[in-house]
Amino acid sequence: MRDRIAMTLDTSTFRNTITGVILFNALLLGLETSERAMALAGDLIRLLDMLCLSVFVIEIGLKLFVQRLGFFRSGWNLFDFTIVGVSLLPGAQVFSVLRALRVLRLLRIISVAPRLRRVVEGLINALPGMGSVFLLMGIIFYIASVMATKLFGTSFPDWFGSLGQSAYSLFQIMTLESWSMGIVRPVMETHPLAWAFFVPFIMVTTFAVVNLLVGLIVNSMQDAHSEEETTRTDAYRDEVLLRLEAIEQRIGDLREAAPPRE
Amino acid sequence: MRDRIAMTLDTSTFRNTITGVILFNALLLGLETSERAMALAGDLIRLLDMLCLSVFVIEIGLKLFVQRLGFFRSGWNLFDFTIVGVSLLPGAQVFSVLRALRVLRLLRIISVAPRLRRVVEGLINALPGMGSVFLLMGIIFYIASVMATKLFGTSFPDWFGSLGQSAYSLFQIMTLESWSMGIVRPVMETHPLAWAFFVPFIMVTTFAVVNLLVGLIVNSMQDAHSEEETTRTDAYRDEVLLRLEAIEQRIGDLREAAPPRE
Amino acid sequence: MRDRIAMTLDTSTFRNTITGVILFNALLLGLETSERAMALAGDLIRLLDMLCLSVFVIEIGLKLFVQRLGFFRSGWNLFDFTIVGVSLLPGAQVFSVLRALRVLRLLRIISVAPRLRRVVEGLINALPGMGSVFLLMGIIFYIASVMATKLFGTSFPDWFGSLGQSAYSLFQIMTLESWSMGIVRPVMETHPLAWAFFVPFIMVTTFAVVNLLVGLIVNSMQDAHSEEETTRTDAYRDEVLLRLEAIEQRIGDLREAAPPRE
Amino acid sequence: MRDRIAMTLDTSTFRNTITGVILFNALLLGLETSERAMALAGDLIRLLDMLCLSVFVIEIGLKLFVQRLGFFRSGWNLFDFTIVGVSLLPGAQVFSVLRALRVLRLLRIISVAPRLRRVVEGLINALPGMGSVFLLMGIIFYIASVMATKLFGTSFPDWFGSLGQSAYSLFQIMTLESWSMGIVRPVMETHPLAWAFFVPFIMVTTFAVVNLLVGLIVNSMQDAHSEEETTRTDAYRDEVLLRLEAIEQRIGDLREAAPPRE
Repeated sequence: MRDRIAMTLDTSTFRNTITGVILFNALLLGLETSERAMALAGDLIRLLDMLCLSVFVIEIGLKLFVQRLGFFRSGWNLFDFTIVGVSLLPGAQVFSVLRALRVLRLLRIISVAPRLRRVVEGLINALPGMGSVFLLMGIIFYIASVMATKLFGTSFPDWFGSLGQSAYSLFQIMTLESWSMGIVRPVMETHPLAWAFFVPFIMVTTFAVVNLLVGLIVNSMQDAHSEEETTRTDAYRDEVLLRLEAIEQRIGDLREAAPPRE
Repeated sequence: MRDRIAMTLDTSTFRNTITGVILFNALLLGLETSERAMALAGDLIRLLDMLCLSVFVIEIGLKLFVQRLGFFRSGWNLFDFTIVGVSLLPGAQVFSVLRALRVLRLLRIISVAPRLRRVVEGLINALPGMGSVFLLMGIIFYIASVMATKLFGTSFPDWFGSLGQSAYSLFQIMTLESWSMGIVRPVMETHPLAWAFFVPFIMVTTFAVVNLLVGLIVNSMQDAHSEEETTRTDAYRDEVLLRLEAIEQRIGDLREAAPPRE
Repeated sequence: MRDRIAMTLDTSTFRNTITGVILFNALLLGLETSERAMALAGDLIRLLDMLCLSVFVIEIGLKLFVQRLGFFRSGWNLFDFTIVGVSLLPGAQVFSVLRALRVLRLLRIISVAPRLRRVVEGLINALPGMGSVFLLMGIIFYIASVMATKLFGTSFPDWFGSLGQSAYSLFQIMTLESWSMGIVRPVMETHPLAWAFFVPFIMVTTFAVVNLLVGLIVNSMQDAHSEEETTRTDAYRDEVLLRLEAIEQRIGDLREAAPPRE
Repeated sequence: MRDRIAMTLDTSTFRNTITGVILFNALLLGLETSERAMALAGDLIRLLDMLCLSVFVIEIGLKLFVQRLGFFRSGWNLFDFTIVGVSLLPGAQVFSVLRALRVLRLLRIISVAPRLRRVVEGLINALPGMGSVFLLMGIIFYIASVMATKLFGTSFPDWFGSLGQSAYSLFQIMTLESWSMGIVRPVMETHPLAWAFFVPFIMVTTFAVVNLLVGLIVNSMQDAHSEEETTRTDAYRDEVLLRLEAIEQRIGDLREAAPPRE
């Protein structure tokens, strides 16, 4: 029976059904945000949502039954498991945060559609190459947060009162959002030299972000280049070298056949 | 007669005339926005605009007469047809939106000028390669909109009251416009953990946009590379291989001519 | 005497002197902005500035004397001539705009320093390749300005009252500065569907700008690539083909020397 | 004894200890920003911080003892020396700026971790290639600052009152932060043509920044390309040429062996 279930789970019909259920669920969760729709057919929407969730739970249950512990070896399975699991947490009726997290369930469309899966895998694969720059950014942010808190914390507790608030404000400044009119100009009114902290911070973080971008481009460039072109070039080169060797060989044979000073 | 019209439509004189009419029409539509010009010569401007429109209608009529249903096979013809058609909709005198849409008629300059046509075709050809990332962005936006509506909809109905309002606000946040001072800081006053929703949203969407950009660069890079260079390289490689073969052949002939152990 | 002046103008000593005068003039013009410096030594500063200007006028006069009409054939000479000429316009004492334009004289540092000259020439050479995209942007801006003026001109005369004001506001929106909180949200209060005009405008112009950037990268990539690499590759390929020809030739000779069926 | 200390300093155990001390110090400096932690255990935190600083001073002292004046030949040593030295400046208890500068000590994590060191060295190596564009930006900023001060200084002393204030405001405008709603629109109310100064300024500086970015990408592209690929290509080409030469040689030998018109 396990084999028969395994085969059923692998059919494209099953896959398409699940995709359909996800899309239908997306529609339901969208309708849930409309007060009018909830007033008209709230109970029906909630019931259908429950049904969709049941389908997901059964699907994952079947996969668990078939693959046993091997199920948890795939990152995508873990992703599905967590996302569906969050919807089952008790208290979802009470806390709005938990209710909102249920919407993450729709991300399952990514794990179901192979094309989207590949895009996300591509994005994730690009991350490790940027590890060092990310680490560097983390260090810069931590140091800058500590400094900003010490320097401006007492005068501007809303923006730089604690490490967390400083990190948030510095993130805002890095995205260049209202950095001058909103933050630095008011700060400069009490600390006239504040620009000497913020302008270099902007330059350094922007420069690091730009280098991240450049690194990404160069990496994908080389990946794209090496796959197709390199194999063709290698094939050509191998053939040329083989033929040259053959010619040398044949000339050597000729020479033996026609000995010098005959 | 159809052939004669077809030939006339193909001449550069005809093309240049149409280009001239479009540019003249652009001038007229620009003048229409000036109250002073309209007070002075409003009737004349409206009359000349009507004349320009008639020229376009006649041109498209002639093309339809010549190419019959084949007319609708070209995307650019459909583009012209729709744009001119919009200007003919009744009610254009009443609704300002329809009056404004008439200005789109000037986009015909793109379908008339071959150089601009190629640029736009290039831009459009770049789109399918980005399809998966666009789809992913759409999913992220839908999920984030539903979540934002559920989480912040009741406290901030202007920004997150409905799915549409949330999507618009999230688009604004993705462009980094006033995201912190304008939206997230006020939201954090009632939901202190709101940054845990918005900061990851900014990071994910920015990262996806950056990857779109990188993909675009890598693609056009390869296109540009492959066209010129590859054909030259291939020509060279074919010649080398041909010559090597010829040499092998000739040596083989030599060997036959001079049999071993003569 | 003309030859002697021509030789003097070409010496590096003369060049360095002019560079020194420009830098000294930069300092003077900087001091002119300080009220304290002007109160202390305003007359001296103005006198020295006059002297610097005289040096530039004499230099250009000498160049004109030496090169005659050939002087105007170089773009950089025209640049110097215009920039210095502006400083000599009468009324510079009266109109602050003319006084400010005098500062442009410091741009001469670019025409004097060969390294900076090359950078600027590089930037200018990159422009024609982007001509079509610029033209397209111009068309989009004109059409969008006419539409925005017709749609929102009466309700928001400060932002969209005339073609010029609309173009400026749309430029601001393209740079994403306060586009939503500052412009589109207020507009949406009277025209709820305004987003349907502005969001596509942002997408189209941003996409065009991104493509400009991509085009720039691909172009400079290829330029950089073709200069060094291509000549090396071509030299190698020519040598290989020449040698292969020589080998074929020699084998042909051999064959004649050793006739078949001897 | 010097040799023994030198060997100890080179062990990975020593390196890891120092890394640990830096991370622990980072934690302490973070805690120092929290009022609650300082109220609870302020003296302990300050004592431990003192200890960490002592470890750094002793480490640098030992390095100085071992390497003598050679110590100052490495940029990273100078970096460590300055950063730790700042913490020892008297008055750090009085001036909050000096207290904040002590946090820079955490940057030592970069000089200790080889991976981060390489990233920073990469970023720094990318700078000289951008020297000309930076110089150009500096010139543009100086000229624009002088002009802005002369044109708008009297009407808007807060933004353009002095060279420094103008430079700061222009930097803000270059980052596109509130450039229109915050600065240029208010300025245009008294100087209606102010856009003719600011819009070209934005275009020129943005274009220069974009070209910096493009230059960076093209440079790292070529660096990445040339290392691996070029050596492989060169090796292949050398072998082909060598073999062709050998073939020619052998055919020459054959010809001698078999003289013409035998």
